[in-house]
Amino acid sequence: MKKCTVFYVSDSTGITAEDFGKSLLTQFDEYQFEGRMYPFITDEKKIENVISAVNYQSTIDEVSPLVFSTLVDEKLSAVLENSNALVFSLYTAKIKKIEQVLKTTASHKIGKFHSTGELIDYKKRINTINYALNSDDGMNTKKYDEADIILLGASRSGKTPTCVYLAMHFHLKAANYPIVEQDLEQAKLPRELLKYKNKCFGLTIKPKILCKIRQERYPDSKYAKLDQCQYEIKQVENIYKKYNINYIDTSKISIEEISTKICKNMKKL
Amino acid sequence: MKKCTVFYVSDSTGITAEDFGKSLLTQFDEYQFEGRMYPFITDEKKIENVISAVNYQSTIDEVSPLVFSTLVDEKLSAVLENSNALVFSLYTAKIKKIEQVLKTTASHKIGKFHSTGELIDYKKRINTINYALNSDDGMNTKKYDEADIILLGASRSGKTPTCVYLAMHFHLKAANYPIVEQDLEQAKLPRELLKYKNKCFGLTIKPKILCKIRQERYPDSKYAKLDQCQYEIKQVENIYKKYNINYIDTSKISIEEISTKICKNMKKL
Repeated sequence: MKKCTVFYVSDSTGITAEDFGKSLLTQFDEYQFEGRMYPFITDEKKIENVISAVNYQSTIDEVSPLVFSTLVDEKLSAVLENSNALVFSLYTAKIKKIEQVLKTTASHKIGKFHSTGELIDYKKRINTINYALNSDDGMNTKKYDEADIILLGASRSGKTPTCVYLAMHFHLKAANYPIVEQDLEQAKLPRELLKYKNKCFGLTIKPKILCKIRQERYPDSKYAKLDQCQYEIKQVENIYKKYNINYIDTSKISIEEISTKICKNMKKL
Repeated sequence: MKKCTVFYVSDSTGITAEDFGKSLLTQFDEYQFEGRMYPFITDEKKIENVISAVNYQSTIDEVSPLVFSTLVDEKLSAVLENSNALVFSLYTAKIKKIEQVLKTTASHKIGKFHSTGELIDYKKRINTINYALNSDDGMNTKKYDEADIILLGASRSGKTPTCVYLAMHFHLKAANYPIVEQDLEQAKLPRELLKYKNKCFGLTIKPKILCKIRQERYPDSKYAKLDQCQYEIKQVENIYKKYNINYIDTSKISIEEISTKICKNMKKL
């Protein structure tokens, strides 16, 4: 596989530049991209170090390095654009256009990404993360009144990471509840959940994939056997249908996609 | 405060467009931005709905709406660019430039962001999230051999959300350990941590802010009193200095910044 080096440069964390670049580069299957983070690049000396690294890399790689930059400072951006690479200054031109349209001046303050200025949002996020942790795996059902979403599913179908993501990114209070033996057998919604039916959303997964995931954790257990996985998935889907609970298959989609689909479905976007 | 409506349009989750736009718009203090998510926009009919919404909004808002789009399809992008808004097509021109430089053709497949193609990464992430949850608040110290990072700090100084973020974004196994009474009194690193000293990183926080956070949770408790917070912070900082443990003040920075600074400091970037 061909290789390409990618530099993520920012006066703040570099997380926006990296997320953006990684996402865009999924379009290029033939290459393997090696990312390098350069956060907190706030002055000329630091930018010179980045440029040295970029230029050096351009002498050893077969193809030109790529640079994704969220630098706000125009001078630093201009210097970076002169390096031996394909440089995308993601912010500077856009800031100018927005200034014109909104008839205002940007603060041009560096390191502003993820400022905690919005303290209410910040606190909300901490609270939702704590809620997800305390309401994992059927814990704390007493606090379901507060929940925005209650995720259901067989063990290891993706409930926990989805709840954490819903908390972290969407600031939603997401609990999760594993459907286990007795409820599976009777294909019944656990009694505790009945009055929260409207907050419930189901996850399902292809039995073969579930089996593989469980095998890794508890090889050769009954729990990880294919027929057990097939049985559990059949029963959880029966429960979803019987109680009119929307659900999605998590087999081939990412935590981000699962979370976004749930939010869209439950009108939380 | 002036208001501006922002549309985030994507053939996938829209998370990249939203994160990018929000981050860029922190440059514009004078405005309050109201975001609208339009994920999974995959055909002409869906894009027409978006355009109707954008154009309608442009008739009621005082300033032009902004549109951040990560559509991959050039035709859909071109249609969107004709709406009554300032439209940023974040991907299309860049894809063309990268195609030229890398002498390759982009897949142009829609919805590729966060594909689970990289199954190893995906599993690693699930594992690190589970590790963070199981190693919260001093739990599971037996598994510290596996940890990449062990965060220390007084109660409510930001350890848990930081660990979750380190897991979710940086795929690191991050445990956290609260420094409590006896260790505080003696200004000693808990015995269990001694052999993991090199994995430890400390959080500190301004006592006044800690006091406020604790007050919200347990108003009028001894735990939330300012002098108790002052005492605890003095002692945890003494421990960090005594054992040569690096630390940062989380008072005014976001979870993303805290996490990036820790990674940089511990050479995990």
